[in-house]
Amino acid sequence: MELLNPIDAVFLTAESREHPMHVGSLQIFERPAEQGTDFVRSLYAELMSATPVRPRFRRRQRRILGNFSSVVWAHGEIDLEYHLRRCALPQPGGTAELLDLVEHLHGTLLDRHRPLWEGRIIEGMAGDRLGLYVKMHHALIDGVSAQRLLQRSLTDDPFTTRIRAPWTVSRTEPEPDVPESLWQQVRHALPRLATEVGGVRSAVRALTEGKLALPLSAPATMFNVPIGGARSIAVGSWPMERIHAVRRATGTTVNDVVLALSAAALREYLCKRNALPDKPLTAMVPVNLRRTGETESEGNLVAALLCDLGTDIADPAQRLAAISTSMRESKRVFTELPRLQALALSALLMSPLGLTFLPGFQALPRVPFNLVISNVPGPRKPVYLQGARLEHNYPLSIPFDGQAMNITVTSTADSFDVGIVGCRRAVPHLSTLIDHLDTALTELEHATC
Amino acid sequence: MELLNPIDAVFLTAESREHPMHVGSLQIFERPAEQGTDFVRSLYAELMSATPVRPRFRRRQRRILGNFSSVVWAHGEIDLEYHLRRCALPQPGGTAELLDLVEHLHGTLLDRHRPLWEGRIIEGMAGDRLGLYVKMHHALIDGVSAQRLLQRSLTDDPFTTRIRAPWTVSRTEPEPDVPESLWQQVRHALPRLATEVGGVRSAVRALTEGKLALPLSAPATMFNVPIGGARSIAVGSWPMERIHAVRRATGTTVNDVVLALSAAALREYLCKRNALPDKPLTAMVPVNLRRTGETESEGNLVAALLCDLGTDIADPAQRLAAISTSMRESKRVFTELPRLQALALSALLMSPLGLTFLPGFQALPRVPFNLVISNVPGPRKPVYLQGARLEHNYPLSIPFDGQAMNITVTSTADSFDVGIVGCRRAVPHLSTLIDHLDTALTELEHATC
Repeated sequence: MELLNPIDAVFLTAESREHPMHVGSLQIFERPAEQGTDFVRSLYAELMSATPVRPRFRRRQRRILGNFSSVVWAHGEIDLEYHLRRCALPQPGGTAELLDLVEHLHGTLLDRHRPLWEGRIIEGMAGDRLGLYVKMHHALIDGVSAQRLLQRSLTDDPFTTRIRAPWTVSRTEPEPDVPESLWQQVRHALPRLATEVGGVRSAVRALTEGKLALPLSAPATMFNVPIGGARSIAVGSWPMERIHAVRRATGTTVNDVVLALSAAALREYLCKRNALPDKPLTAMVPVNLRRTGETESEGNLVAALLCDLGTDIADPAQRLAAISTSMRESKRVFTELPRLQALALSALLMSPLGLTFLPGFQALPRVPFNLVISNVPGPRKPVYLQGARLEHNYPLSIPFDGQAMNITVTSTADSFDVGIVGCRRAVPHLSTLIDHLDTALTELEHATC
Repeated sequence: MELLNPIDAVFLTAESREHPMHVGSLQIFERPAEQGTDFVRSLYAELMSATPVRPRFRRRQRRILGNFSSVVWAHGEIDLEYHLRRCALPQPGGTAELLDLVEHLHGTLLDRHRPLWEGRIIEGMAGDRLGLYVKMHHALIDGVSAQRLLQRSLTDDPFTTRIRAPWTVSRTEPEPDVPESLWQQVRHALPRLATEVGGVRSAVRALTEGKLALPLSAPATMFNVPIGGARSIAVGSWPMERIHAVRRATGTTVNDVVLALSAAALREYLCKRNALPDKPLTAMVPVNLRRTGETESEGNLVAALLCDLGTDIADPAQRLAAISTSMRESKRVFTELPRLQALALSALLMSPLGLTFLPGFQALPRVPFNLVISNVPGPRKPVYLQGARLEHNYPLSIPFDGQAMNITVTSTADSFDVGIVGCRRAVPHLSTLIDHLDTALTELEHATC
């Protein structure tokens, strides 16, 4: 038995039928050329034989009393046949059929009586592709760590026969240089945060009294409403090289370009519905910061930055410039704060997402952002699962009440992959956002390259 | 807006991730000989065009305040693409793949923000078959009514092209002679039950003081434990004629034979686990009674009968005889009670399944039965969906805390179909019960025919 961390417990407590608290991932693989349609079955058999299952993937929730502090993890045997299953797409097995399935899988709750993760190997996909959908509860792992874990179960050797499953990968195996996620850092700093209430309070005061140059009130939009229990999912991919070309031509970062594309798509989506606010939308952007003079050994600081998305600006190049400026300013504020206060400020900005139990934290007067836009680093080299090359890698995150849509992007060796998850009721026709992203990239190229 | 009946509301209130309160149905159809694999797609398109959707299938829950009496039904537009979807089995599309899918579908909660029903057309089945899985919330419809509705959407004309969907069938269309279900009757009698508290109290007293010859304490078994959120499903079919042959040879009823087969399978399942109690198991059996002298116009009485399953008896013929005697005695008790008291007694026996809010009702000292075994009348003639013949019809009911398994049987024109739903953790290897049922039928034939 193992005590559940209070931050992790909050994700269990906040969960309901309308608010599943798991992060997901949809990976698309290309079937090895020499393999037939039964490859997917032998892959399943190989994965089922990948044991022993590590403790993290065997632990399940146990409630001893009725409150946070009494939630513990119990370790036991695992019924792997329950957790990993095969499923198939109806004909013709295209994107529509794939998303229909994944929307259902992503919208249903994990069983609290079992280890809080599930996987599905998806067959019946057009074009000799196969899919792997995995969902893991946020109490078990955060989105960035989940992506890292899934990447670590792949290999850059297309010819290896050794199977690695996410539930067997050891922490000591080599892993790419990905910083601790924001949630992880807040979790690790929690004991200090909780005791240094004074520092937290002064961060809150600075924030609410407007001493920090952050846009603190986001305009009301159709995305900032209570959500229902059904999900819509949209995914899209573009060559990574196109993103880099814009970045190079404008002297900005990949993250800036991601935000500019999202901003353009959101602007277009809202315009078409006569729902674009006069004030620009604000995104919360988790970003890894390392301060001037800090050595690598001093670790990373992932901060919750607020970014003015410039959705009031019509010109794509000007909008990208405004976003880049906003991100630089937001980073400056964070890097000039003492480290613990910076972390406290991040935690405060995340508080609408459930983190309101820390001593000294109160609810902010208004929701400080319209949506979360994350960019999770992906593998830089081609990676494989039993010889099947990872073609696309769509992270699928969590909409919350008041945050009816989430945009998360990541990449494979040469593909820029976007996963959008929305409340099916609050954000209709989610797939049009993918069309708008496509138009936005073309326009940004014309304006800058 | 429409006030939700308190009995229906109880099914919403009692629901949680571990206790989904929907009834399900899995129908297997034979593809028409002249049709190809795209039949399933055109059938889906036909069903999607079946409108208008009747109010029952458009209503969704709305909470005005926070208690029972404030739950109301709101009617609105319906997003039919959400409610009816296509899905497919992985290769080879056999029973294992089918049940794996249906276990997942039956174990997940309906979205409370939408009308409380979902359907799936299942393709990729071996042997030119296709499936239709439907689930409907118990607050919307009870199991017997759901079966009746699904039957009414089929036709005995294999050549008709007129599509009927369960959500378009009118109540005024002809329907088979199926009595009101137990739940429906209790619901309709509720106002009288609630005001005649005295009668209800005397029924409770008679029951708890042992004045009614009913086996009031069921032995503790592995089935009478709290349940988890994952489901196991097992289905099996036998020629209806074999059931009738045993019935005729022994002078018993189809229901008696159903109970004897179930009893034999339960005995074997428990024996193999050294878990058979010395005392016989008790089943709760909803049965339609019509008393001597009552005319048809006086309606039906569906009663919750308790049946001694004779699991302590080794001989199959003797066991059947004991079950038949127990059922006769149980029916006698009910038919000799005043009608309203009989209904109150039924409601009381169902109280472990959630019905504990009636005035005068208290919890019984011990759970009076080990499991529910229902026999729902099916169509007597071959029936079709757009020319596809209904081959099997498996009703899938609800396990409860303390009732970790449910057996429900029904039939098509010539097939006797059994659907067993269990808690995946509490009732392992559920499919062995189907093997035991098969053995039991053979043994009963040898012993009696």
